[in-house]
Amino acid sequence: MERSYDRAADVLRPVKISRRFTKAPEGSVLIEIGDTRVLCTASVEEKVPPFQKGTGKGWVTAEYSMIPRATQSRTQREATKGKLTGRTMEIQRLIGRALRSVVDLKKLGERTIWLDCDVLQADGGTRTASITGAYVALTDAVQYLMNNKLLKTNPITDTLAAVSVGKVLGNQILDLDYVEDSKAEVDMNVVMTGSGKFVEIQGTAEEIPFDRADLNVFLELAEKGIRTLMEVQKTALETTS
Amino acid sequence: MERSYDRAADVLRPVKISRRFTKAPEGSVLIEIGDTRVLCTASVEEKVPPFQKGTGKGWVTAEYSMIPRATQSRTQREATKGKLTGRTMEIQRLIGRALRSVVDLKKLGERTIWLDCDVLQADGGTRTASITGAYVALTDAVQYLMNNKLLKTNPITDTLAAVSVGKVLGNQILDLDYVEDSKAEVDMNVVMTGSGKFVEIQGTAEEIPFDRADLNVFLELAEKGIRTLMEVQKTALETTS
Amino acid sequence: MERSYDRAADVLRPVKISRRFTKAPEGSVLIEIGDTRVLCTASVEEKVPPFQKGTGKGWVTAEYSMIPRATQSRTQREATKGKLTGRTMEIQRLIGRALRSVVDLKKLGERTIWLDCDVLQADGGTRTASITGAYVALTDAVQYLMNNKLLKTNPITDTLAAVSVGKVLGNQILDLDYVEDSKAEVDMNVVMTGSGKFVEIQGTAEEIPFDRADLNVFLELAEKGIRTLMEVQKTALETTS
Amino acid sequence: MERSYDRAADVLRPVKISRRFTKAPEGSVLIEIGDTRVLCTASVEEKVPPFQKGTGKGWVTAEYSMIPRATQSRTQREATKGKLTGRTMEIQRLIGRALRSVVDLKKLGERTIWLDCDVLQADGGTRTASITGAYVALTDAVQYLMNNKLLKTNPITDTLAAVSVGKVLGNQILDLDYVEDSKAEVDMNVVMTGSGKFVEIQGTAEEIPFDRADLNVFLELAEKGIRTLMEVQKTALETTS
Amino acid sequence: MERSYDRAADVLRPVKISRRFTKAPEGSVLIEIGDTRVLCTASVEEKVPPFQKGTGKGWVTAEYSMIPRATQSRTQREATKGKLTGRTMEIQRLIGRALRSVVDLKKLGERTIWLDCDVLQADGGTRTASITGAYVALTDAVQYLMNNKLLKTNPITDTLAAVSVGKVLGNQILDLDYVEDSKAEVDMNVVMTGSGKFVEIQGTAEEIPFDRADLNVFLELAEKGIRTLMEVQKTALETTS
Amino acid sequence: MERSYDRAADVLRPVKISRRFTKAPEGSVLIEIGDTRVLCTASVEEKVPPFQKGTGKGWVTAEYSMIPRATQSRTQREATKGKLTGRTMEIQRLIGRALRSVVDLKKLGERTIWLDCDVLQADGGTRTASITGAYVALTDAVQYLMNNKLLKTNPITDTLAAVSVGKVLGNQILDLDYVEDSKAEVDMNVVMTGSGKFVEIQGTAEEIPFDRADLNVFLELAEKGIRTLMEVQKTALETTS
Repeated sequence: MERSYDRAADVLRPVKISRRFTKAPEGSVLIEIGDTRVLCTASVEEKVPPFQKGTGKGWVTAEYSMIPRATQSRTQREATKGKLTGRTMEIQRLIGRALRSVVDLKKLGERTIWLDCDVLQADGGTRTASITGAYVALTDAVQYLMNNKLLKTNPITDTLAAVSVGKVLGNQILDLDYVEDSKAEVDMNVVMTGSGKFVEIQGTAEEIPFDRADLNVFLELAEKGIRTLMEVQKTALETTS
Repeated sequence: MERSYDRAADVLRPVKISRRFTKAPEGSVLIEIGDTRVLCTASVEEKVPPFQKGTGKGWVTAEYSMIPRATQSRTQREATKGKLTGRTMEIQRLIGRALRSVVDLKKLGERTIWLDCDVLQADGGTRTASITGAYVALTDAVQYLMNNKLLKTNPITDTLAAVSVGKVLGNQILDLDYVEDSKAEVDMNVVMTGSGKFVEIQGTAEEIPFDRADLNVFLELAEKGIRTLMEVQKTALETTS
Repeated sequence: MERSYDRAADVLRPVKISRRFTKAPEGSVLIEIGDTRVLCTASVEEKVPPFQKGTGKGWVTAEYSMIPRATQSRTQREATKGKLTGRTMEIQRLIGRALRSVVDLKKLGERTIWLDCDVLQADGGTRTASITGAYVALTDAVQYLMNNKLLKTNPITDTLAAVSVGKVLGNQILDLDYVEDSKAEVDMNVVMTGSGKFVEIQGTAEEIPFDRADLNVFLELAEKGIRTLMEVQKTALETTS
Repeated sequence: MERSYDRAADVLRPVKISRRFTKAPEGSVLIEIGDTRVLCTASVEEKVPPFQKGTGKGWVTAEYSMIPRATQSRTQREATKGKLTGRTMEIQRLIGRALRSVVDLKKLGERTIWLDCDVLQADGGTRTASITGAYVALTDAVQYLMNNKLLKTNPITDTLAAVSVGKVLGNQILDLDYVEDSKAEVDMNVVMTGSGKFVEIQGTAEEIPFDRADLNVFLELAEKGIRTLMEVQKTALETTS
Repeated sequence: MERSYDRAADVLRPVKISRRFTKAPEGSVLIEIGDTRVLCTASVEEKVPPFQKGTGKGWVTAEYSMIPRATQSRTQREATKGKLTGRTMEIQRLIGRALRSVVDLKKLGERTIWLDCDVLQADGGTRTASITGAYVALTDAVQYLMNNKLLKTNPITDTLAAVSVGKVLGNQILDLDYVEDSKAEVDMNVVMTGSGKFVEIQGTAEEIPFDRADLNVFLELAEKGIRTLMEVQKTALETTS
Repeated sequence: MERSYDRAADVLRPVKISRRFTKAPEGSVLIEIGDTRVLCTASVEEKVPPFQKGTGKGWVTAEYSMIPRATQSRTQREATKGKLTGRTMEIQRLIGRALRSVVDLKKLGERTIWLDCDVLQADGGTRTASITGAYVALTDAVQYLMNNKLLKTNPITDTLAAVSVGKVLGNQILDLDYVEDSKAEVDMNVVMTGSGKFVEIQGTAEEIPFDRADLNVFLELAEKGIRTLMEVQKTALETTS
């Protein structure tokens, strides 16, 4: 099977993470995975949603959007339609849940970190790119809080990244681009921590159900991809900017 | 660990499936799993959504709702709020996707089957109960179409059921009730076909990430539970009513 | 004129009231009138709407909904449309107003009782069945408050039931089913108290205006029907469950 | 009991009907009943709603609104809130239903007459004033259609007017103003045709249920008031303008 | 070029301002400019929006609406559509901004004056008529506050009026009616104070861009028109009513 | 008065226009004016809105949005709120109107060009930067249509750019950044064509009304700034990319 960038089944597209992409946010990261480009910003707000008030605990939440022409043909704006699609809701719930899994909300204190993931160009894997990029933006926002003495101890408990795997024409492959995704028999998103554990596994058979043997291959591929992504995250975070 | 109905970790709550619960729908099923009660109706509509028009293919879609006092305290109606929550959207997308995976849309022809899952009482596992019940309602609706010579060949390609598994206080268990669900470290929903393959796996670590060993136990438990559910479905469908 | 259940013009369809139909609500009643089936729940909330705050008075309010396939052909969900229809608003305002007429809000104290009427199967007369069933659910919720020492004196001032009457093919009849309702020349809903007084009379000439003589017959029929309904309510409430 | 305009229990407030109040509409009527002022316009549209298409029948429908400061204190605009209140929906459904009862939709042909009732000043009885005024606007619109040879025969089958009656401090009275309405024990709206028959009776006991004797007095009062209103309508329609 | 009322390029249509048009509002003005008729009410509310709370400053804001048949053909109600159009938002923001420019919000104190502009008949220039009429309603509301000792000093800092100018068939003209407006090459709205300064200039070339020479003529015309409008305002305000 | 980039009153911030910023759109331009950064895409759609159908004419329309953290503090998403703010509506109407003024819709043929302006970073002047950038994106989209033989003659009739001018602390200045804008006494947006004519002038006195002398200076400054912007546009469009 031929793939973009001439890559093998178990290879990621080129990945690039640029910090401080815009000035205002406490964390602002442009993540590029092949042609997929997501701007992930982290914004600190010194209050929490009603259900968290008075608990001493903070909150981490995400919103996701695509600009209308991130996609091959123009998609109507959700703001114009007046409501979010089910797909957007599902994705932003996933991103928020994933990032919360590596934050000690007690240590964060009664504040919210908003992770806004705006897709500028979509070529498959926007939700996993969002998680991987948002982790870096979150780290910068936490660093900002510590630099400004608003936090004493780091509430982030582990590193985090995500990738998609799937089956196309019977081949199990890592990091599907849009063309692959649109003809995939199985599509799976995997979120893992640096300690090698799963935070989220979401596998869907679009046409052909899969078995345990497939699943095992998917998880091997995902782990390999996530390890690479974590190295890119690490390098980006170590770079003075 | 003590569980409701004095059951072991790998045992389902009592399951009951009642067909023809209401008169109008082509399929109308009340599924009861412990105290969880969902009314699943299947309605045939002789048209398809715009994206399917002229393709010769049909469509299967689902909607999910809870009556306000299905839950321990009253939940505001989504109709009153004027919009669906992210949770509802996510669940109804899952149900629709799952059921479509066992229907040959070409054979169904240009018509839609609506699966409405209305939760009358919620005690955990409402989305998996919905899938399991909706499968029976769908089967009745297809039978109706065949009886009325509107369909010649059965478009259903396999049987389908779903169950939740998870980890509570370090124990991997099958079929979590509400109390268990609300303190689960890991929560996973599994949808399988009669041929023993996966249609959907959605696992979320609420607090503590899980590893491959956990995952393997979860999948064993799920398979066992789903086998039992399929027997209840089969018995219900064989009963003349 | 032939009628369902071979009944005369002045006879109700079979009526059945089942209390404690679901577990969570303070009152939970399934009322069946012929094929019409409504689940009426009463939920106590320990706060009142803004306009009642600080007055020492409570509030009783109702919401009404039909599941999509309660009707012969599927009706789109109001939650999906994003707004309530005029019909729903009109009905739930009627139910709330009717029930409030037999509650001393001062005695109820600053709390709200929500009456949720969810129609599982619709065969005419759903709004009057909702009122008749909601009265029983309300009584159970008040009993719950008294049993738990949250109320000392019973705020319910009278019993209450409702029925529809109308004119079909020139015949004045009691308790119209869907077929009758859809061809009625006049349609009237009557809500009465146990003391034999009117709380609400809503009569509409769909095609042919009516006169005083008609009106008098309608009110005789309604009173007869409501007397019977009140006996069913009474029997249901006396049954230990 | 003292009443505005020193009137007896069975006397209307001063009534004034001005035709051709604005230029664009096919019918444009300002109705003033005491301080209540409603602008009723009738607009002809040469198409019908989907449910009426191809039936050869027309449609008559109404919309009702109050300007924000029609009332003693400012009411938020429904356009700003983004939805109609239940009260507005109920009122505009009533107006539309009432007017349709005196129109032969077959004779009207496949066109819609929109009746827009905009309350400029509200002092009680706005819904009945709307019906009484809309009847005149409708008549002018039908006359316009006949003058322009768009209609051969008049589809209006009878005259129509409406009035409120009620019980205040134990007194049965005709045509309640705002102050009376806000303390009424019973509030009833009656719509009658010129042939003296009822099109709609809506009676609500706000606090104290009413009996047959009350009802009979209410209907006498309503009939008397409606007779007077019909004379004012007739005079207005006979005036060349 | 022939114009309505046989007027020259630099002449306004007949203008009439009627105060106390309705009873409830603190200011209630009907402004008629040719066939354009707008009811402008000013309502005092003893609170301010959140962003102004605790600042000691008040707020002045406007809402604008047209009744459906103010226009030649019926326009759908924004309340029915469930949202305001861009045109309405733009107009009401303009009206509010214009009026705030002549009010010292500090002197007004922590209260809001709502200016509601409801167009009963639209024949061009409704937004400028709204500003001109709202100024008079605002003045009456302020006078009401001073008469009732709620304000000691008058917060209005200058007089204010607005007019439209434009270019039709190459002619620069003052006060366009609907027919002129719909074929204008340039359309400009000008808001001025009594001291002869500009508060707002909004000029749009619909088809043919304009140059500095045009602009100078437009501003001369506008100033002339606004001077006349201010005299009508003054006369209306001096009339005892 | 000190200004960012040490510039004089009549000098623009540094301007940069990058074409082909993303791959999918027919035109994709990142415009940077100081720290203001707007991504302007042009998308061709082979259909027109209903009001333009069958006229042989095309349409050009714009949508505008800011990502939540484009601004100093996070702004709630309009998609989440479920509606556009008045500010957004006003801006996108302005952008669309401005661009339409230089397109011969007849020559464009029955197709729509969507101009999406998404603000990634906001430091004042986002609406004028959007117009200036959208012009370049539009030009690329038209070139795409011509290259693909979908258009024979170029429908663009003139070049177009926009800039803001205003008065801060009594100084008339060109191209206000956010800090200047938030304390401006007068704020004016000017849209001009390459032939030196005005397409739109929108001037607002926030606090202090302005006179003719001010206006003349504003227009001089605007013309100077727009000339410079047009050179940057020209250079960008001449660059092979």
